[in-house]
Amino acid sequence: MTAKALPGFRDFPPHDLALRAYIFAAWRRVATRYGFEEYDGPPLEPLDLYTSKSGDEIVGQLYNFVDKGDRPVALRPEMTPTLARMVAERANGLKKPIRWFSIPQLFRYERQQRGRLREHFQLNCDLIGEAGALADAEIIALAIDVMREFGLGAKDIRVRVSDRRALTALLQARGVTADGMYAAYQFIDKLERMSPADLERHRTTPQPYAPATADDLIAVAGLRGLSQVESAVAMLPDGAAAVAPLTETLAALDAMGLSDWIEIDFTIVRGLAYYTGTVFELFDAGKTLRAICGGGRYDTLLQSLGGVDLPALGFGMGDVVLGELLKDRGLRPEPPSAIDCFVAAVTPEDQPHVLRIAHQLRDAGIRVEYAFGQTAVGKQLKIADARGARLAVVVGPDDRATGTAQLKDLQGSTQEAVAIDALAARCHELLAG
Amino acid sequence: MTAKALPGFRDFPPHDLALRAYIFAAWRRVATRYGFEEYDGPPLEPLDLYTSKSGDEIVGQLYNFVDKGDRPVALRPEMTPTLARMVAERANGLKKPIRWFSIPQLFRYERQQRGRLREHFQLNCDLIGEAGALADAEIIALAIDVMREFGLGAKDIRVRVSDRRALTALLQARGVTADGMYAAYQFIDKLERMSPADLERHRTTPQPYAPATADDLIAVAGLRGLSQVESAVAMLPDGAAAVAPLTETLAALDAMGLSDWIEIDFTIVRGLAYYTGTVFELFDAGKTLRAICGGGRYDTLLQSLGGVDLPALGFGMGDVVLGELLKDRGLRPEPPSAIDCFVAAVTPEDQPHVLRIAHQLRDAGIRVEYAFGQTAVGKQLKIADARGARLAVVVGPDDRATGTAQLKDLQGSTQEAVAIDALAARCHELLAG
Repeated sequence: MTAKALPGFRDFPPHDLALRAYIFAAWRRVATRYGFEEYDGPPLEPLDLYTSKSGDEIVGQLYNFVDKGDRPVALRPEMTPTLARMVAERANGLKKPIRWFSIPQLFRYERQQRGRLREHFQLNCDLIGEAGALADAEIIALAIDVMREFGLGAKDIRVRVSDRRALTALLQARGVTADGMYAAYQFIDKLERMSPADLERHRTTPQPYAPATADDLIAVAGLRGLSQVESAVAMLPDGAAAVAPLTETLAALDAMGLSDWIEIDFTIVRGLAYYTGTVFELFDAGKTLRAICGGGRYDTLLQSLGGVDLPALGFGMGDVVLGELLKDRGLRPEPPSAIDCFVAAVTPEDQPHVLRIAHQLRDAGIRVEYAFGQTAVGKQLKIADARGARLAVVVGPDDRATGTAQLKDLQGSTQEAVAIDALAARCHELLAG
Repeated sequence: MTAKALPGFRDFPPHDLALRAYIFAAWRRVATRYGFEEYDGPPLEPLDLYTSKSGDEIVGQLYNFVDKGDRPVALRPEMTPTLARMVAERANGLKKPIRWFSIPQLFRYERQQRGRLREHFQLNCDLIGEAGALADAEIIALAIDVMREFGLGAKDIRVRVSDRRALTALLQARGVTADGMYAAYQFIDKLERMSPADLERHRTTPQPYAPATADDLIAVAGLRGLSQVESAVAMLPDGAAAVAPLTETLAALDAMGLSDWIEIDFTIVRGLAYYTGTVFELFDAGKTLRAICGGGRYDTLLQSLGGVDLPALGFGMGDVVLGELLKDRGLRPEPPSAIDCFVAAVTPEDQPHVLRIAHQLRDAGIRVEYAFGQTAVGKQLKIADARGARLAVVVGPDDRATGTAQLKDLQGSTQEAVAIDALAARCHELLAG
């Protein structure tokens, strides 16, 4: 037998699955409060679903192969192409805006770096069919409320927001042409991690974003706060239109009481070419971890994927960085106990009653175990303790004669005789208390 | 863009995902009541995890390939090898018995038959480290309680139970040797679906289970009910020991009040060679569908997989046949409404208040939407209706002046003015009512 999972893949024994389940449950609660409905697609898809969007170079990062029916296929590296297909197939029957979320497991074959995973789970929230800035505020607010659901505050997390429309207007004013725009985005995107030597190279060799210079781009990327951006854009011919969505988005977030979380920060570009408007990333305030969440508006992507022509925006939030953050901050909850109640037999003759009572309590929604073998009551109570049971029910010959059982509160160290028919209700009372 | 998912793979738009989520939630509730803890493993595993158990012939049914690091890998076709690995890695640190469940998506490349899927989700419950018959009863009771959780009763579902120990003793008594035993199991397993020609061939040509005849096997497979089995086994030298676990299992299920569900039926063998004791399958009473669930005791499997030497038993229950059954019986629930409450603005100036109120209600756990554009209140209430909202909050200039909002119960057609700070509590009251 293979002793281990594949490198980059995680086993989830119960202790680890408990954290994953805690994260997924919070994701679902918050997305649902925003009216988002959950969907899913296959983890294995036709390869061309990805190459048609990202070109053949993405194949180097895919788990791709040819299946036994000679179909080129790949494990999904992202959810958006699947979403685009599903929406395109049903576009006419769906009320707009469409609010859909999913929690797919995604796969990328990356050259193994220390501790780098090849799979992760990701909350994907997408809002399709609405071009207005209130939708941008809605998506950013949803991401923030997920952080709040985990007990994180504006002091822990920074939401760095930019807007491709305002950024593009400012870059054009500095001389960047349409052909050089993507190179300018890439430069700004890499700026925070760029070595002095690379920066020097940008300053001294011809660049596709010329006649703008590296220092022009640095000046634009250095804009902070809405007032700086509004001032910079105000001087441009179409400046008012270019900055209006960002202004409106921030006003809406302010009305929701969330403006404390926001930093306007024009170094945020997000490398992907397909964003068309608002872009944002969530980071821990100390920036010790990679981005927790990233997203933005991609009004032309669905159509370019061969789907419907609908404006859209969304974000992805992975489980790995988030899990690290929760551990770092002491916000990882204790895994729940395995059971609520242990039912113990005093003599072998009590065993059928134990089975009856256990089944009755389980029917009432209580998590119950009992010993499979004959052992002393004291030993059974030790098992109860090891499994984290709050309650124990002990059944002996005297109890059977009177139709009762002894109910112990292992936390309060109290004991009472309870009629068997009343046991479930009394257990619920104690568990709620 | 590819217009469709791969053949045999399902998209889950929200309406379909709602059924899947309903099934998963019921699975989790019942497993948890039995003290089972959830685990998961990677959907992609080293290929030899499967070939070491099932031999190379299984490769024809796998989604297998060589990854970019030259590792032979496969999408998981079943969960037990992953479970065996995970338990083996942690065996010393785990209290026995181990009660673990998982809901993996499993993959098999089967030659496409009409409507046959190549992926499905499966509830896997396994109880490891307990050899006694109470564990067998526990696992069967868990499977039955899952059926009860879906509203199915003993009249809808039959639990057909056999025991390899009693079956083997009876077959040995008819002359089947150790070498011929697997062929005898296979014959009995196929008996219900066997053509008259095949049966005739078994009667007229030499078979590995000789000197036993096909009619000997048919006689054993025809045993029904515990008393028939006990009578047949009583005549054998080790008969008492061979039938004791089955008798004890049934007594325990009787104590739990579940004996109505059980049919002792010695045609149930389950094809897999690795079962060692109790085997069982759940069918719809009309036998119109394939098996809903199958399982049994496999005391030697974990060790043969290179893992730990622990007795174990478990079952698998797929989502596909179960989903069909729920639809057939009208037990598929209506998908939940998308939202609880729609917040509407009377004038454009009311929009910031809508945002504030919406966010406040969402913080209180209420599922809320509002319109992104400016439209008449009547049209906003139509959106509320289309999204299944029970409540609507309407904010106009007069309300703003008094710090209130109009709360409409769209079901009861009532309306009341509520102070904004009291809205969330009042919404909860109406939603609970």
